[in-house]
Amino acid sequence: MPTPTEFDRLRIVLVAARNPLNIGAAARAMSNFGVPRLRVVNPYAAAFREARSAVGAGSVLAKAEEFATVAEAVADCSLVVGTTAVRHRQLQHTLRRLEDGARLIRKRLRSGRVALLFGSEKFGLSNEALSHCHWLLRVPTSEGNISMNLGQAVAVCLYELVRDAKAARHAEKNDLAAGADAERITEMLLEALHASGFLTRRRVADADQRIRRLVRRLNLPARDAVIWQGMLRQILWKLRSGEKPPD
Amino acid sequence: MPTPTEFDRLRIVLVAARNPLNIGAAARAMSNFGVPRLRVVNPYAAAFREARSAVGAGSVLAKAEEFATVAEAVADCSLVVGTTAVRHRQLQHTLRRLEDGARLIRKRLRSGRVALLFGSEKFGLSNEALSHCHWLLRVPTSEGNISMNLGQAVAVCLYELVRDAKAARHAEKNDLAAGADAERITEMLLEALHASGFLTRRRVADADQRIRRLVRRLNLPARDAVIWQGMLRQILWKLRSGEKPPD
Repeated sequence: MPTPTEFDRLRIVLVAARNPLNIGAAARAMSNFGVPRLRVVNPYAAAFREARSAVGAGSVLAKAEEFATVAEAVADCSLVVGTTAVRHRQLQHTLRRLEDGARLIRKRLRSGRVALLFGSEKFGLSNEALSHCHWLLRVPTSEGNISMNLGQAVAVCLYELVRDAKAARHAEKNDLAAGADAERITEMLLEALHASGFLTRRRVADADQRIRRLVRRLNLPARDAVIWQGMLRQILWKLRSGEKPPD
Repeated sequence: MPTPTEFDRLRIVLVAARNPLNIGAAARAMSNFGVPRLRVVNPYAAAFREARSAVGAGSVLAKAEEFATVAEAVADCSLVVGTTAVRHRQLQHTLRRLEDGARLIRKRLRSGRVALLFGSEKFGLSNEALSHCHWLLRVPTSEGNISMNLGQAVAVCLYELVRDAKAARHAEKNDLAAGADAERITEMLLEALHASGFLTRRRVADADQRIRRLVRRLNLPARDAVIWQGMLRQILWKLRSGEKPPD
C-alpha cells in the first residue's frame, strides 16, 4: 500500500463530468481511501458547484482544482493513465487490467506524480483526452454490462491501489482458541458423551479422534473458550449427578 | 475468479436499505461483476419500487427477492458474512479485511451458498442482523473516513471477488516490439548517432549498450516498430546524403 506521501502524488482527474452526485461520489471514495487530490477538467459548472456539498467528501472537494484542458490538468504528471470500459475497439493504447495497471501506478508513485483520468458518464474519455495517456486501464467487468457508474469505478480503482496483497493471506483478527482450550473442551465433550451414554450405544473405534476433529472444525474463537468450558462443566456435573453412586 | 455458476450461489443481501439510488447502484455493480442474485430485507418500500427503474441494473432488480427478516434471507446459505466499517468497537465476531475474507468466500462458493450482508446507509447492520453472521468483512478504508457509500462498498467487495490475482502479474494486452525489431531500431539509431557526429564528439566506451538499454526502456509497442524503423531509415538517408562522397 502506498504511503500517504505517495498518494499525495496521485491526481484523480474527472474529465467533463456532468452529474454532481458522481463528482461527489468520486470525492467520497477518494476520502475513504486517503487520496486527497482531485482535479476536474471542464466540468458542467452547476454540477461542480452542487457536488461541493456532497456528504463525506468535504475536504477533497474544497481543495479540488479546476482546469480548462486535459493538457493543463496533467502537466505536472510523469505518468498519465486513462480508464475505459471499451476493450474491443481498435485502441491506440496498451490496455491493462486494473490488477496489473495498479501495480505499475504504485511503482511510479514512489517517485513521481501520476494522473488517473476518468471520462464523462455518457461518453467516457474523448480521443483528445486519450492522446495524453501513456496507457489505459480497465476494470474487469463482465461482458454483459461493462459500463460502470463513475463513482463506483473510482472506488474500485482506488481500492486496488490501497489493496494489501499480504492481507489476502492472513486474517487480520482471527484469534482462535488455543490448542489447550480446544483439547479441554474436547475432553469434556467426550466425557459428556460417555456419561450420557451416547458413545456407549454408538461404539466406534476412533471416537476420540472424531470428536477432536469435530471440535477443531468449529474454529472456536479464543474469547469463547471459557464460556464453552463452563457450559460443558455444568452439563457434566448434571450428567454425573444422575449417576448411581459407585458400589 | 469464480465461475458464473459459483456466482449464482452468492446472495447480496441489503438489510434495511433506505435510498433508492443506493439500491440501484448496488444492483448495477452486481450486473457489472456478473453477480445476479439480490435480496432485500425490509427495505423502505417506496425506495425499493423506485430503485427498480435504475439504469444498467434492470435484470438484477427485476429478479430481486424481498424478505421480512434476515433469518429468512440467509436460510439457504451455509456461510453468512456481514460487512462493517467499524474496527475498534468490541465486535463479537472475527473481523477480516476484504482481501482475506474474499478468499474464504470464493472457496465456499465452489460448493455452497454464501450471503454477503450490507446494512443501512445510516446505521450499518444491527446487532440482530450481525448475530446471523459467521464473521465480518471490512473494506480497508483510511482512518479519516471509514464509512463508504453503500453502492461503492458493494462494487469494491464484488471487484475483490472477481479480481484475478494472476492478472496482477501480467499485462493483458501489452504487445511489445519483438527483440529483433528493437535491435534493428537500436542499430539504426546508433548509426544515426554516429552519422550525425553525436557519438564521435561524446566518446564513451559502452555507447552501444547504453543506446540499447535506452531503446528497451521505451517499451516500444509492436504496432509502432515499423513506423519507427521507417522514420529512422529516412533520417539515416538524409544524414548520409550530406556526407562527402568517399575519396
